[in-house]
Amino acid sequence: MQNKIIDLTHLLNENATVYPDTVGPKFESINNVAEHGFAEMQVTMVLHSGTHIDAPCHILGNTKTLSDFPVDKFMGTAIVIPCMDKVEIGLEYLKTFEHKIAKVDFILFFTGWQYKWNSEAYFEDCPLLTVEAAKWLATFKLKGIGLDAFSVDTIVSAHVVTYETLPNHYILLGAEIILIENLTNLDQLPEDIFMFQCLPLNIEYADGSPVRAIAVV
Amino acid sequence: MQNKIIDLTHLLNENATVYPDTVGPKFESINNVAEHGFAEMQVTMVLHSGTHIDAPCHILGNTKTLSDFPVDKFMGTAIVIPCMDKVEIGLEYLKTFEHKIAKVDFILFFTGWQYKWNSEAYFEDCPLLTVEAAKWLATFKLKGIGLDAFSVDTIVSAHVVTYETLPNHYILLGAEIILIENLTNLDQLPEDIFMFQCLPLNIEYADGSPVRAIAVV
Repeated sequence: MQNKIIDLTHLLNENATVYPDTVGPKFESINNVAEHGFAEMQVTMVLHSGTHIDAPCHILGNTKTLSDFPVDKFMGTAIVIPCMDKVEIGLEYLKTFEHKIAKVDFILFFTGWQYKWNSEAYFEDCPLLTVEAAKWLATFKLKGIGLDAFSVDTIVSAHVVTYETLPNHYILLGAEIILIENLTNLDQLPEDIFMFQCLPLNIEYADGSPVRAIAVV
Repeated sequence: MQNKIIDLTHLLNENATVYPDTVGPKFESINNVAEHGFAEMQVTMVLHSGTHIDAPCHILGNTKTLSDFPVDKFMGTAIVIPCMDKVEIGLEYLKTFEHKIAKVDFILFFTGWQYKWNSEAYFEDCPLLTVEAAKWLATFKLKGIGLDAFSVDTIVSAHVVTYETLPNHYILLGAEIILIENLTNLDQLPEDIFMFQCLPLNIEYADGSPVRAIAVV
């Protein structure tokens, strides 16, 4: 059986779109072949750069870091739910996928924002889960929820992070459902269940991690 | 069929062993939940930190970076070859594995150095491929070669990187066989062929990348 691998990860460089109030990744060549005999790049970045995971402790004090989970937390079965024509992702719509949601480890929301990456339009609100829908999803045994946009909540200034401004983060991370943000190529995924992976770096106490997310279909 | 996932990745923190003349990773908490409503760690590290890949361009000018390869370059079938009782890994020994080497994408050498991680003994020469053996391996269609030690060559000062000091790097990277260094848990792998993965971050022009390497057995 021939598996096809679909790369769901944006290219990471200094031009990559970053969340408001966040410093973008910096890359510096500190050694090069001509002068030093070997090339070595150094990166400085927050752990929430590019396509990345949010751990529960990113928002909620005294909750799990990424290194608190076994590695199989970051791989499993998945479905993609098309939301391109939605303003909000409500409970009624999600219930039409209930029999699949009950079976999978990950849900990916395809908002169409992947086409806006590296443009100003990426900062507009993507289709957002209602609080009612997020609470309903939190009752399933999901490992994670991903999307091709910044956030499962409205983009807010870093100065007003509260339950009121980021309710879906609080609800989902509170249920230990990790969030995978800034995915791409979700338009290439099948309607059926597929395998999804988003293995984080093995950084101790990480509140997040850039990942190379893939689907195996 | 139940797959078992084995994490082959060392924990990455500021105490992680680094190659001589290399600066270790630095982690800084730039935001925290109590003060800012969210936690965000920033990392500064060379791309060859912890368990990581070397791209051909790490040593050889005008060769491929990691972003030049499709993502399936970093996953496939693998075997582990036990080398704990060896001083060098010679052609004669490798030939006893020839029928398996011809079939797999990755070879992992278990040197026992994984037990020396984060100690001075990790800097001692591990069992090393002979140049003859490296040249023979380069004739196979291998995607990569990994080991639970720093290097497929003697550890050298960064000031004397040449074909003479790092011949195995030149030979293997020259054949576009990526190197995966500082693996661990190789003692938990089966004798038979298993699935191996070492997906790099999707960093443009990367000469290397820390990875979350795993086996699926």
